[in-house]
Amino acid sequence: MAFAESDARIAQRRTFHAYPEPSWCEFLTTSRLVDAVEAIGVDRLHVGSSALDADERVGVPDVDTLDRWRERAADRGARVDVLDATAGGTTGLVAVLDRGPGPIVGLRVDIDALPVTEADDDEHQPAAEKFRSENAGVMHACGHDAHMTIGLGVLEAVKASDFAGTFKLFFQPAEEVLGGGRPMAESGHADDIDALFAVHVGFDHPTGEIVSGVEKPLAIRQTHARFTGESAHAGAAPHEGRNAVQAMATTVQNVYGIARHADALTRVNVGRVEAGTASNVVADDAVLELEARAGTNDVLDYLTDRVDRVLEHAGAMHDCTLSTETVGRAPRVDSDDGLADIVGAVATNVPAVESVRPSAPFGASEDATYLMRRVQERGGEATYVIVGTDHPTGHHTPTFDIDEASIDIGIDVLTRAIRRTLGDDA
Amino acid sequence: MAFAESDARIAQRRTFHAYPEPSWCEFLTTSRLVDAVEAIGVDRLHVGSSALDADERVGVPDVDTLDRWRERAADRGARVDVLDATAGGTTGLVAVLDRGPGPIVGLRVDIDALPVTEADDDEHQPAAEKFRSENAGVMHACGHDAHMTIGLGVLEAVKASDFAGTFKLFFQPAEEVLGGGRPMAESGHADDIDALFAVHVGFDHPTGEIVSGVEKPLAIRQTHARFTGESAHAGAAPHEGRNAVQAMATTVQNVYGIARHADALTRVNVGRVEAGTASNVVADDAVLELEARAGTNDVLDYLTDRVDRVLEHAGAMHDCTLSTETVGRAPRVDSDDGLADIVGAVATNVPAVESVRPSAPFGASEDATYLMRRVQERGGEATYVIVGTDHPTGHHTPTFDIDEASIDIGIDVLTRAIRRTLGDDA
Amino acid sequence: MAFAESDARIAQRRTFHAYPEPSWCEFLTTSRLVDAVEAIGVDRLHVGSSALDADERVGVPDVDTLDRWRERAADRGARVDVLDATAGGTTGLVAVLDRGPGPIVGLRVDIDALPVTEADDDEHQPAAEKFRSENAGVMHACGHDAHMTIGLGVLEAVKASDFAGTFKLFFQPAEEVLGGGRPMAESGHADDIDALFAVHVGFDHPTGEIVSGVEKPLAIRQTHARFTGESAHAGAAPHEGRNAVQAMATTVQNVYGIARHADALTRVNVGRVEAGTASNVVADDAVLELEARAGTNDVLDYLTDRVDRVLEHAGAMHDCTLSTETVGRAPRVDSDDGLADIVGAVATNVPAVESVRPSAPFGASEDATYLMRRVQERGGEATYVIVGTDHPTGHHTPTFDIDEASIDIGIDVLTRAIRRTLGDDA
Amino acid sequence: MAFAESDARIAQRRTFHAYPEPSWCEFLTTSRLVDAVEAIGVDRLHVGSSALDADERVGVPDVDTLDRWRERAADRGARVDVLDATAGGTTGLVAVLDRGPGPIVGLRVDIDALPVTEADDDEHQPAAEKFRSENAGVMHACGHDAHMTIGLGVLEAVKASDFAGTFKLFFQPAEEVLGGGRPMAESGHADDIDALFAVHVGFDHPTGEIVSGVEKPLAIRQTHARFTGESAHAGAAPHEGRNAVQAMATTVQNVYGIARHADALTRVNVGRVEAGTASNVVADDAVLELEARAGTNDVLDYLTDRVDRVLEHAGAMHDCTLSTETVGRAPRVDSDDGLADIVGAVATNVPAVESVRPSAPFGASEDATYLMRRVQERGGEATYVIVGTDHPTGHHTPTFDIDEASIDIGIDVLTRAIRRTLGDDA
Repeated sequence: MAFAESDARIAQRRTFHAYPEPSWCEFLTTSRLVDAVEAIGVDRLHVGSSALDADERVGVPDVDTLDRWRERAADRGARVDVLDATAGGTTGLVAVLDRGPGPIVGLRVDIDALPVTEADDDEHQPAAEKFRSENAGVMHACGHDAHMTIGLGVLEAVKASDFAGTFKLFFQPAEEVLGGGRPMAESGHADDIDALFAVHVGFDHPTGEIVSGVEKPLAIRQTHARFTGESAHAGAAPHEGRNAVQAMATTVQNVYGIARHADALTRVNVGRVEAGTASNVVADDAVLELEARAGTNDVLDYLTDRVDRVLEHAGAMHDCTLSTETVGRAPRVDSDDGLADIVGAVATNVPAVESVRPSAPFGASEDATYLMRRVQERGGEATYVIVGTDHPTGHHTPTFDIDEASIDIGIDVLTRAIRRTLGDDA
Repeated sequence: MAFAESDARIAQRRTFHAYPEPSWCEFLTTSRLVDAVEAIGVDRLHVGSSALDADERVGVPDVDTLDRWRERAADRGARVDVLDATAGGTTGLVAVLDRGPGPIVGLRVDIDALPVTEADDDEHQPAAEKFRSENAGVMHACGHDAHMTIGLGVLEAVKASDFAGTFKLFFQPAEEVLGGGRPMAESGHADDIDALFAVHVGFDHPTGEIVSGVEKPLAIRQTHARFTGESAHAGAAPHEGRNAVQAMATTVQNVYGIARHADALTRVNVGRVEAGTASNVVADDAVLELEARAGTNDVLDYLTDRVDRVLEHAGAMHDCTLSTETVGRAPRVDSDDGLADIVGAVATNVPAVESVRPSAPFGASEDATYLMRRVQERGGEATYVIVGTDHPTGHHTPTFDIDEASIDIGIDVLTRAIRRTLGDDA
Repeated sequence: MAFAESDARIAQRRTFHAYPEPSWCEFLTTSRLVDAVEAIGVDRLHVGSSALDADERVGVPDVDTLDRWRERAADRGARVDVLDATAGGTTGLVAVLDRGPGPIVGLRVDIDALPVTEADDDEHQPAAEKFRSENAGVMHACGHDAHMTIGLGVLEAVKASDFAGTFKLFFQPAEEVLGGGRPMAESGHADDIDALFAVHVGFDHPTGEIVSGVEKPLAIRQTHARFTGESAHAGAAPHEGRNAVQAMATTVQNVYGIARHADALTRVNVGRVEAGTASNVVADDAVLELEARAGTNDVLDYLTDRVDRVLEHAGAMHDCTLSTETVGRAPRVDSDDGLADIVGAVATNVPAVESVRPSAPFGASEDATYLMRRVQERGGEATYVIVGTDHPTGHHTPTFDIDEASIDIGIDVLTRAIRRTLGDDA
Repeated sequence: MAFAESDARIAQRRTFHAYPEPSWCEFLTTSRLVDAVEAIGVDRLHVGSSALDADERVGVPDVDTLDRWRERAADRGARVDVLDATAGGTTGLVAVLDRGPGPIVGLRVDIDALPVTEADDDEHQPAAEKFRSENAGVMHACGHDAHMTIGLGVLEAVKASDFAGTFKLFFQPAEEVLGGGRPMAESGHADDIDALFAVHVGFDHPTGEIVSGVEKPLAIRQTHARFTGESAHAGAAPHEGRNAVQAMATTVQNVYGIARHADALTRVNVGRVEAGTASNVVADDAVLELEARAGTNDVLDYLTDRVDRVLEHAGAMHDCTLSTETVGRAPRVDSDDGLADIVGAVATNVPAVESVRPSAPFGASEDATYLMRRVQERGGEATYVIVGTDHPTGHHTPTFDIDEASIDIGIDVLTRAIRRTLGDDA
């Protein structure tokens, strides 16, 4: 019986895995989640634009991209009502079990995928077992397929339990671009939450290990920058060019070189660059996607000031104009010990859990912090839980994969923690 | 009557202009040229694979790109026989008028377009008069539309004249990637030529000016380089990355900084860069399109040695592997004075020619030099002729345009020069 | 009475301050310390070459520099026997109070100064009160003048106390170049120590604060690198040069850009550069002084591997040969809690101590870690104690100064801790 | 007899060679030249401050440097009257033979040396034959020792000839820093000159070759730039630094990368850099000596605009302030054909001359152009003559040397040209 359930969950995870959608384009994913939630049955369901404050979105792709993914979803059978509710890239949903007065508890999982081309060799299980991404260049390379499956499993289990109060399940879009956390935090749905759990698999924690709260999610800012210069014939008139490639390279060399800060760790990365058209033309255009992260919000300010200074003067040095857009941002927000302790306590009761760690440093960033901060600001508590999973290679790589056994563990631990927080200690 | 002819030529040039095709994808262009040449009537016609040595091609795009352009050409009515003869990207043609014993004279024009998005405002004549490129992102921004029209006009005029000997007209593909010159030079068609003319419009010479030979076409090498590193999560594991963006930026900073040479001028350019996928992933991949040019073949060797050294060590510095491909190459070859003098002499007899210059420095590169070198090596003479044309902005820019009056001038001057070379001084 | 003693100590500190000597050149300083130790009276005194393993020294200046400082010291009255014992730059001393069986306790202070030109305005107390450095370009800008005074004060107080066992006082040379710690650790004098204290003033801790142990002294490696290329006339033959300035700049741009490490903090710095001779000569020579630090010894290995990779390929990229020399190195060694707790406990009994902190993060590096590691490896314990002192500006700056009130506090706290460790809890 | 003279000249050149003095420090050199000129006997002699407009000097070293060289010169027997006339670094002299009405003809030679450490191995003739520089770090590595010897030889020969008119011999200081040409041009001594010759040995022309005029001396600007940031402890507070080394490296990477110009050749070089104090301090100071050269004065303006832009924004990028000083500048001035023809004509009559070239391209810069321009502006003519000399290695290198046989050739050719210009065609 449990085996059958696990099998179904693994099948569900693989279905999600095979059809990854990029941030703000999770049209079929949202439709499938609505189907699954409705199959379980909830008291209220907020889909798409009613699940978030659409004006707070950042990192939304252009209309052509949105349209292309929406059409593809429609072709694949996405529900018309969901496509309507998510028009223009307002993906995601909030499902609510409401049993009257009592604690209000939330769980947040994320649903988007990454611009990574999935590995295609047989050592990569999704390829060997035929559930590799069918969307070229997009991949669930960070485990959000597992997160959705865990979320649905928890919903089912909590529904089957006996509690008073409210359980809200947030399926957040656009985490990878740090774009969906803030719109959900500003939607109002999180304002009355007493206890919020967020969950992520992996991060080098093995299957059977639970981290009940994270220590230092990095504050982050992600930026798109564009240098516009002037093109010229590289042979006949090089001096007439204003070279955007040189502005770009000067930026790269110098943002990586920004001084470390004594107060907190820092990270900088220029992860994508595209510039120019052909070798015989001085490039008049360069686009950079870059980010800065820091262990504190103050040090992030330090870092972004320096990044901006580099961008400004790298452009001016090569007589290029600069435009920048912040496409993602998330603060550092720490887990509350009280809530983390509950996770730790219940986890020790789960047979498959072999190790419980009270906290671990967290080198990544997450816009779950917007939801967590919102809850904390209004008097509630929040914690970010890591469910260990054996993964052969790092997150965001073409060969990332999870140990599917960790899905049931995550469901079990979170269900217990939520039930206990709801006062149902059965 | 002349007016009518001019009108027809202008219409012909505009037809070419409206349907630009990139290098090695000139399928419809080749088909239309075959139609036009057959309408004039020639003794022999070598199309596609029989016009060049296909193994010597460089810069050929991938199969998908070739197929897409071929299908588009088919949709637009390209002849099946031409599509067969140019399968796999063996575009171009050689048309021959053969009147038996006598001098063998050649003219070379080029036929491909550039990856430039044409301007769309009314100050740009092709937009205002509705013959702007209908192929998004591709543009005749270097006047090859005019070159083809001139070539056809010369063919018609030479055919109508009275001469003994042979006239060969080379419609060369893929000049912009310096890919077509060498395959045509190696085809055998140039081996018996006594006098070869190549032609180009513009280069800041006004309508009415003729340059009878160029002084210093730059030797050139164009390269595609790729750095392959290892991706990693930019926040959680930056030290696990092997950063291709840093290898790329180090390359850019240092190739532009390669020391000038006392013996001849040098040019370097990194004209296109594409790297990485997203800001939160350390990039494992970077592609650069770069080139080096020099005033002598020896100094080009100096320069390419240094470029290669920078590439090698920029990659190794960041623990990235490097692969490179030479995608274009052309030697410096100077015009022969004797042949240039003939052009100068006949040009003074053309009423619309206001200024004749014996030679001008030439900051660009050209793979016509392969054909010129082949002719010179086998005892013939060659010259590269510039037909002045007022152009509002520089070559290779979105607002490049020609003065259509220069087309007739070019036909007139070249026809006279070719006829004189053929011994027909009427 | 205490006032008189304090006055004498302040005078002593100012005498040290006014005659700062660079690393391995502390000839007059060693002589004065020998005088002061002999005035107090000890059982054994190891001076110069008998206080350290001379073969383990790094960062020793050239013979001319050593000779110049030695002559200056001789002119100023340095003792001939001390000059003999320190010949060739074997400075420093170890003083021993030996009262037979019992614990063996050590204290380590450092004695060298920095290549900083001391401020000369009246807001800088040493200038206003006329004890500014008389050695141009050298300055006690890190408080070692206070350290020596504290060491002598502790020696006097421990001698006056009633204990069984041994007290060893290490006056270590060449800390600023991380050159003296290892030779003293290898001298044998530290091999039998049960408890070792090291001391430093300041680091942003105010007067009255004691930090009983430090958390993370950074592991460090310091390097001198030299690129040798080939000079050429910058106008007439730039291509003949092999440009050491470009190799240097490429190094700078890329070592600062080495990826941060998820496991521990990292630091890189290129603190000094000297290259070339004149603007019209391509530079054939560039010298860099650079360093890497990390929070763990493993991450230091990561970092130095990358630094070395950058150096190697920056040189090869510009066809320059590279030579490198490690001039300073120190591991990370943490304080032992047991010993730190003793410091904390006694410090609370010192009236002038207002705040005691069990540990503080430590962004600097220190080669006291070599002595600490030696003691720990042989079964003893060690702690690094910070004695707070108000300092107007940062360490290593021209206006650095200490609050002289902190000297007596340091003597009091350390004497109590040493006495308690020796079993004398009076 | 001629042999004896040559021997004396060689001895004279070697005396100059063995005691090189840097720009504006030619105190003993000026004194020795005054002695030699007085021994020949002239009608007027302007020494030091009366030979130039002192306010127009650039590149003058600091007072300490001037004083040190002046004292050294005094110790070596420099005349007191010359030391007075050259006080403060107003070195050089103008010697005049005045025989009344007639043409006024000038010759300019330069007298300073370079900051190069002369080679010390026996393959270097000055070392083998014991006339190597006795001033460490300074060397006659550009042949000015030969120029002075040629100047004195011409003076003697012209004096011995029969002419009407005036001959002015300029011994110009500070050519290597492009500092002395303009002060001499502004002194008034050149205002009435009808024909001016300047001379230089070498430049890859062998002994026996004469170049009667140069084609393209490069226009040049030399700059000292200083970045001032803020120092900080590299381990404990790297974020507090404003890093002048990074500003410097960014400058180097980008000035070498300034785009070539289609109109004329360009040169850039950062020939000397000095920054920071020690590896553990973020550098607050960096000094660069850099230069730009171009084939035309307009292109020099292009280049210096770009250099200044790089400097400005490299500083601002790293929050460092920038100060710059132009320390040398010279325009491009071409030789007059008429005067060059005279040199060419007489040179063919000199037996040791094997080859005469009417002109050669000239990759170097020279502030003789200030004197030439002054003469041309006032209606006279000027030419820059190269006297070939076999030299084993390039100018400005530690092993540069001349073929002493070229000294007599230079005297002979220039004496004949000057005499002919003076109307004395004997």
